[in-house]
Amino acid sequence: MLDKELERRRLDSLYDDLFPICRSITGPGLRESLDIVSEHIPLEIEGVPSGTSVFDWEIPAEWRIYDARLTGPDGKTYANFQKTNLSVVNYSEPVDRRLMLDELDPHLYTNPEVSNATPYVTSYYDRTWGFCLPHDIYEGLPDGEYHAYIDSEFVDGELNYAHATLQGESEREVLLSSYLCHPSLANNELSGPLVLTSLYKRLKQWDERIYTYRFVLCPETIGSLTYLSEHGEHLKSRLAGGIVLTCLGGPNGRLSYKTTRREDALVDEIARNIDEYGAFDFEIRPFTPTEGSDERQYCSPGFNLPVGQMARTVYGEYEGYHNDEDDKEFMGISPLVESAAVIERVLQGFEYADYFENQEPYGEPMLGKRDLYPNVNSPERWVDTDAEVDKPEFLDRILMILNYSDGQHSLVEIANMLNASVLELIPAVEILKRNDLLTRRADR
Amino acid sequence: MLDKELERRRLDSLYDDLFPICRSITGPGLRESLDIVSEHIPLEIEGVPSGTSVFDWEIPAEWRIYDARLTGPDGKTYANFQKTNLSVVNYSEPVDRRLMLDELDPHLYTNPEVSNATPYVTSYYDRTWGFCLPHDIYEGLPDGEYHAYIDSEFVDGELNYAHATLQGESEREVLLSSYLCHPSLANNELSGPLVLTSLYKRLKQWDERIYTYRFVLCPETIGSLTYLSEHGEHLKSRLAGGIVLTCLGGPNGRLSYKTTRREDALVDEIARNIDEYGAFDFEIRPFTPTEGSDERQYCSPGFNLPVGQMARTVYGEYEGYHNDEDDKEFMGISPLVESAAVIERVLQGFEYADYFENQEPYGEPMLGKRDLYPNVNSPERWVDTDAEVDKPEFLDRILMILNYSDGQHSLVEIANMLNASVLELIPAVEILKRNDLLTRRADR
Amino acid sequence: MLDKELERRRLDSLYDDLFPICRSITGPGLRESLDIVSEHIPLEIEGVPSGTSVFDWEIPAEWRIYDARLTGPDGKTYANFQKTNLSVVNYSEPVDRRLMLDELDPHLYTNPEVSNATPYVTSYYDRTWGFCLPHDIYEGLPDGEYHAYIDSEFVDGELNYAHATLQGESEREVLLSSYLCHPSLANNELSGPLVLTSLYKRLKQWDERIYTYRFVLCPETIGSLTYLSEHGEHLKSRLAGGIVLTCLGGPNGRLSYKTTRREDALVDEIARNIDEYGAFDFEIRPFTPTEGSDERQYCSPGFNLPVGQMARTVYGEYEGYHNDEDDKEFMGISPLVESAAVIERVLQGFEYADYFENQEPYGEPMLGKRDLYPNVNSPERWVDTDAEVDKPEFLDRILMILNYSDGQHSLVEIANMLNASVLELIPAVEILKRNDLLTRRADR
Repeated sequence: MLDKELERRRLDSLYDDLFPICRSITGPGLRESLDIVSEHIPLEIEGVPSGTSVFDWEIPAEWRIYDARLTGPDGKTYANFQKTNLSVVNYSEPVDRRLMLDELDPHLYTNPEVSNATPYVTSYYDRTWGFCLPHDIYEGLPDGEYHAYIDSEFVDGELNYAHATLQGESEREVLLSSYLCHPSLANNELSGPLVLTSLYKRLKQWDERIYTYRFVLCPETIGSLTYLSEHGEHLKSRLAGGIVLTCLGGPNGRLSYKTTRREDALVDEIARNIDEYGAFDFEIRPFTPTEGSDERQYCSPGFNLPVGQMARTVYGEYEGYHNDEDDKEFMGISPLVESAAVIERVLQGFEYADYFENQEPYGEPMLGKRDLYPNVNSPERWVDTDAEVDKPEFLDRILMILNYSDGQHSLVEIANMLNASVLELIPAVEILKRNDLLTRRADR
Repeated sequence: MLDKELERRRLDSLYDDLFPICRSITGPGLRESLDIVSEHIPLEIEGVPSGTSVFDWEIPAEWRIYDARLTGPDGKTYANFQKTNLSVVNYSEPVDRRLMLDELDPHLYTNPEVSNATPYVTSYYDRTWGFCLPHDIYEGLPDGEYHAYIDSEFVDGELNYAHATLQGESEREVLLSSYLCHPSLANNELSGPLVLTSLYKRLKQWDERIYTYRFVLCPETIGSLTYLSEHGEHLKSRLAGGIVLTCLGGPNGRLSYKTTRREDALVDEIARNIDEYGAFDFEIRPFTPTEGSDERQYCSPGFNLPVGQMARTVYGEYEGYHNDEDDKEFMGISPLVESAAVIERVLQGFEYADYFENQEPYGEPMLGKRDLYPNVNSPERWVDTDAEVDKPEFLDRILMILNYSDGQHSLVEIANMLNASVLELIPAVEILKRNDLLTRRADR
Repeated sequence: MLDKELERRRLDSLYDDLFPICRSITGPGLRESLDIVSEHIPLEIEGVPSGTSVFDWEIPAEWRIYDARLTGPDGKTYANFQKTNLSVVNYSEPVDRRLMLDELDPHLYTNPEVSNATPYVTSYYDRTWGFCLPHDIYEGLPDGEYHAYIDSEFVDGELNYAHATLQGESEREVLLSSYLCHPSLANNELSGPLVLTSLYKRLKQWDERIYTYRFVLCPETIGSLTYLSEHGEHLKSRLAGGIVLTCLGGPNGRLSYKTTRREDALVDEIARNIDEYGAFDFEIRPFTPTEGSDERQYCSPGFNLPVGQMARTVYGEYEGYHNDEDDKEFMGISPLVESAAVIERVLQGFEYADYFENQEPYGEPMLGKRDLYPNVNSPERWVDTDAEVDKPEFLDRILMILNYSDGQHSLVEIANMLNASVLELIPAVEILKRNDLLTRRADR
């Protein structure tokens, strides 16, 4: 286990490096951010040219933004890209015009519900330009002529994404995917990539990995579509499960798991099992295609991958969502460390959640000769050759695992029968494996 | 939509033409009735000879009745076919005998539970004769010699049934079946055929019919058995669903749906969906072979067709069932118009209840380029290019329909997920079809 | 039906013959006991040599015990095999030693929870020796030198088991299995074999048996493993169901059924059906491999046979379990007779629980021509040609059995739909069979 305080400091510093960058779904800000994350995960960074068809979509021209400013008739600057990159509509076309307030008005965006915050607005696929500002300021804008200035350009460039793997015993994979594409936002932008770096470091330290772990970072929606376009068939044939990471900080006390579209994938079962019987309590949200993150693409019907989603303070459910209140203070760094620790435990459970096979299925195996059963059947005596096996409950677990490991019942199903989390059953599984009574199912 | 008052008047007049005729499972009364209904539905009327084997049954000789009268020792007429055709046991053999009351008694039928009504009694397959009279009159019959006179005959004739179809786009069919065989009864005889004529006229006016609709009128039980004997294999290969129409008038405020034997046929699902989320509330009765109408034959295990049953004031659950209290006043004409209107809506839902297929299943389709999604992602703006699509709820429906139209989920299942009736989803389905994002499943 | 008082006396006398014998999983006591039971069931007694491999196990050397005694420093006898054969640890190796109390202590076994009883202790697979005594006496043992004397030997012998069959119409079998291996214990030893003899006699008297019944007696665990080793493939291909008999006496008022591992085997369904709708109330225990009797072997995953278990006063749930309080007074003989009577009824239900096939599945069969339906359809008249068929409920049963006997619904499922026990439906099934409307499914 990593020292949590070190981890907290590393994430805090990484946050500070990433936060000021003006990211979008393409462009230099995205590339710079991926380079910074690469110092923590050995990412391969890929580029796909603008104009490439991606299923029903097309990769848009690359957007580059240099400056933006809205100056009032009174000479005051009402929106300033240099002060916050949220103040320009993301993917704005260039503009250098003087116009009256009523002409300008359709280009101004506010959020009256959070009237003192600058909202985050995008227009990726419809050419327009605009400024974002607090509704309170918008309400007091003086009449007169304004100067709208946006120094941006669209170039034939590329869309970038990045990935890395941690090899395990099996070719079967677990996907951990998050996104980078929002400018200066915290919980709904940086929390995912930051937790992803922690998970990479934690999983790298495991003594043994059954599955191969795939770490993906891409711009949301168009990025995961591009990833599926290039790697979807690979994922279809290899994926044992996956989790999209989003909004993993903030004040909420417990993690929230959104199930896969299948609803009964192994990753759903392990999340429910740990929620019900383990040390962590989750909110379990059913799958929906109507809101969420890249799991909407991974779980589109043509792919229907076994990918769920983990969040803490969920998109759309907090006031700072998509505005500049979503900052480090709101998100916090410690919640990210906690999120990484819990997700690591879920993945440890997932490693064991699948099917095992009893190697002595005809009759009950003779446990006595393996010192797993009290050879003298007396009301007073229990074996104590091993500290772990001196309890009747441990024997019950062994008998249940053996009896139901018939290729029809996954370990998570057996754990549910035992009112236990899969994590609690690992010692029993390991003893049975050492005694050649249990093996992982070959086709896993 | 037909004008309801015109429809009411048409049904009222048709009722008056049909009510007085003495129908049975065979004979001139049945033929005359089918001819009259033919003026409203272009029925083909078929005849199957007496003596024909029909599965485990045999078509009986044709029964013709001319007159019947029971005269008392006091010269009074205690039962008179000319006054009500219920007063003779249906399928009575001819008789012209004088006999004492105790000899006569086994040939007299009453219903002590409804002591002032003449019951409806039949003896199709066991040769006997009898009179039906109110129990109150039976109780006061004077001793002495009676004259029992029934002028009837059995001839080598035929059993008649009738059918018509309204062609749709698909060869797959929806069956609408009712019966004609009871003499002067209203709710439990004429309500079904009358509603059938309304449905024919209503469905004929639809702009588009997906399914081909088959309208069947036959005597109950032996008639539907005969129909199955001649057309059962056709129905087995073509039927998408069906409804038997019975007892569709009377005082009950809501319709009552008896499920198919399968219990999960599409017609069951649409009835439950509309009951749960639609504008109409149904009573849902589970299938049983122990009572009912021709769905018992359609749903016999050798056929097991997806045929449910619609009723309003259900057989056996009202005092006038099978006696002369079941008349126009009890049944009413307006309830029939209401029944037809509701069943038409159920059928409109059924047209969409089946499986659709998302034509862009890899990733979420790009809705923005089709003006189905707000291109500027801002807290304030929603697309309003089309009055129907300016609400987030409409977008949610589009996303759900697309995501789950994978060949595994029928539209009725998707509607249930959305807590909506299929009828409410039709606008979204139509927009998606127009945008080439959705098609009906080919094998429908 | 046997006269219950005669049965009670027979079992009482058989009990007295069997109780004093010192049985174990092998040896002369087991053989002598099987010989005695053979006087009531024509058992074939088989022997399998010591050292034979049985799946993951090996048949141990045969144990023979002649005498055992523990004498104190005061000359008192603190444990005496001649007084109760429980006082020596079953499978003790021979010993003739003088030792001090602290040296002796690890060889003394008591049950502090039932401090005045001699516990039953075994050490089949680990060579040791020991004495069992009441905890109260153990607490007062004087210091000093003791004489431990056990006259036993291990020989190359055999393990014995016994079986018999009662032929039925079908080659498919029902297994009734119990065990013999504990020395002088009653409920948890003799109750099963005694009830087995009653069931043999009861089933032999049936006019007709659909299934062939297989009666098995063997030492617990190693005996059923040996039986499966020799006859498991036969059971796998032939077994329609089975019940392990254990602990069938004692004070509990109702029987308790432990389901098969499959949980939905026909024998589980019939037990639930009779519990829910029949004259008997059962406790239903779910299957578990963690405790129980030989069903743990029959239901091991490699066999997964449809074998449940019947008990009354269940192992582990009474104070006298595995100690000398488990005697005739505790067990009682009358409860055994009651247990046999109830299990016989369950087996009678099981004979009908399977699938029947309607021979006229197209439409409803014409019941009228078979006098199963009122030919005159009048509110007053019902057929009464047969006392059994004069009730509408009987007709409902007939219609339900016919409609659902489609090869997809077992009679126990149909009975559940009718809120009736299978036993209640037998008259209707028999009438339908006599009328050639129903047959047993051929592949039964």
